[in-house]
Amino acid sequence: MKLLFATHNKHKLEEAREILGKLDIEIEHFEIEYDEPRGEDTSEIAEKSARDLFSRIKKPLFLDDSGIFVNALNGFPGPYSAWVFRKMGYQGILKLLDGNENRKAYFKSSIAYASEKGTFVFDGIMKGSIPKEARGDNGFGYDPIVVPEGMDRTFAEMSDEEKNSISHRKIALHKFADFLSS
Amino acid sequence: MKLLFATHNKHKLEEAREILGKLDIEIEHFEIEYDEPRGEDTSEIAEKSARDLFSRIKKPLFLDDSGIFVNALNGFPGPYSAWVFRKMGYQGILKLLDGNENRKAYFKSSIAYASEKGTFVFDGIMKGSIPKEARGDNGFGYDPIVVPEGMDRTFAEMSDEEKNSISHRKIALHKFADFLSS
Repeated sequence: MKLLFATHNKHKLEEAREILGKLDIEIEHFEIEYDEPRGEDTSEIAEKSARDLFSRIKKPLFLDDSGIFVNALNGFPGPYSAWVFRKMGYQGILKLLDGNENRKAYFKSSIAYASEKGTFVFDGIMKGSIPKEARGDNGFGYDPIVVPEGMDRTFAEMSDEEKNSISHRKIALHKFADFLSS
Repeated sequence: MKLLFATHNKHKLEEAREILGKLDIEIEHFEIEYDEPRGEDTSEIAEKSARDLFSRIKKPLFLDDSGIFVNALNGFPGPYSAWVFRKMGYQGILKLLDGNENRKAYFKSSIAYASEKGTFVFDGIMKGSIPKEARGDNGFGYDPIVVPEGMDRTFAEMSDEEKNSISHRKIALHKFADFLSS
């Protein structure tokens, strides 16, 4: 089975290939510009984006919208995580949390798949926390400040394999794979 | 002359009435939900929003998208100023700038007017800076941390009249009024 993945992010592409490849799904990279709608949640944004894109290109495709939702910041940066990262990196999040003992956060990935049958969204949520300092140099984006619940290492301190066995994106991709194979 | 102003913000409504009222333009408040598109700039967001809204309601209308663009934060919070304010207030901006001597910022208001003749955007920009501490209790939103260039008081330390004689929104509204009367 072959699927188009609309993304500009090569790391996401690799993650999807690693996870879906095991399920015999071949990912074709698809670079296209699209306007992301605003929304309070990644699932809403992914769903609208995939539907709009499908109506333009008329080929089955999927895409991902991910976010990091920090409790003490009322869910900031949430659906604007990528944009906020471009403005201030993960350092901005650490600065905003400086002196705050509540480090809880959750990490969410929403995969939306659009085809002639409709648009379907698969959410993966991972609970965790934000450390007081960034650690590790593997991965991308916010990985150096993402600590999964029950662990003490950040995503950036793990191998790709370990990260991809527990991540929010893995959860979403597996739900998507189950849907495809059913 | 009568015009629909699509806004949920009563302060913006009052400002517009005060400024356009002097020019014999009557503002009718128009409460409606609309999806704001994403964009890197307030003019782009205002323009798309007004055009979409006009295509739905088929009545001439205008709306405003405003932002505060902080130099040391690469323009953050910019087009997401209202959303960021709901998440962390102006305190978040002060925290992000803590220890930073570069306090420069600019404040931008984009008014978009849509009618059967097309969509027109009027930008008002005011240069200024962010103080080290919030001051004053007049106004709304980021006003306690907005210091216009060449002044030392914040918008929140000024009377409505003084603020409305220099603000970025006043500049945009006057351009709009000039357009309407020509």
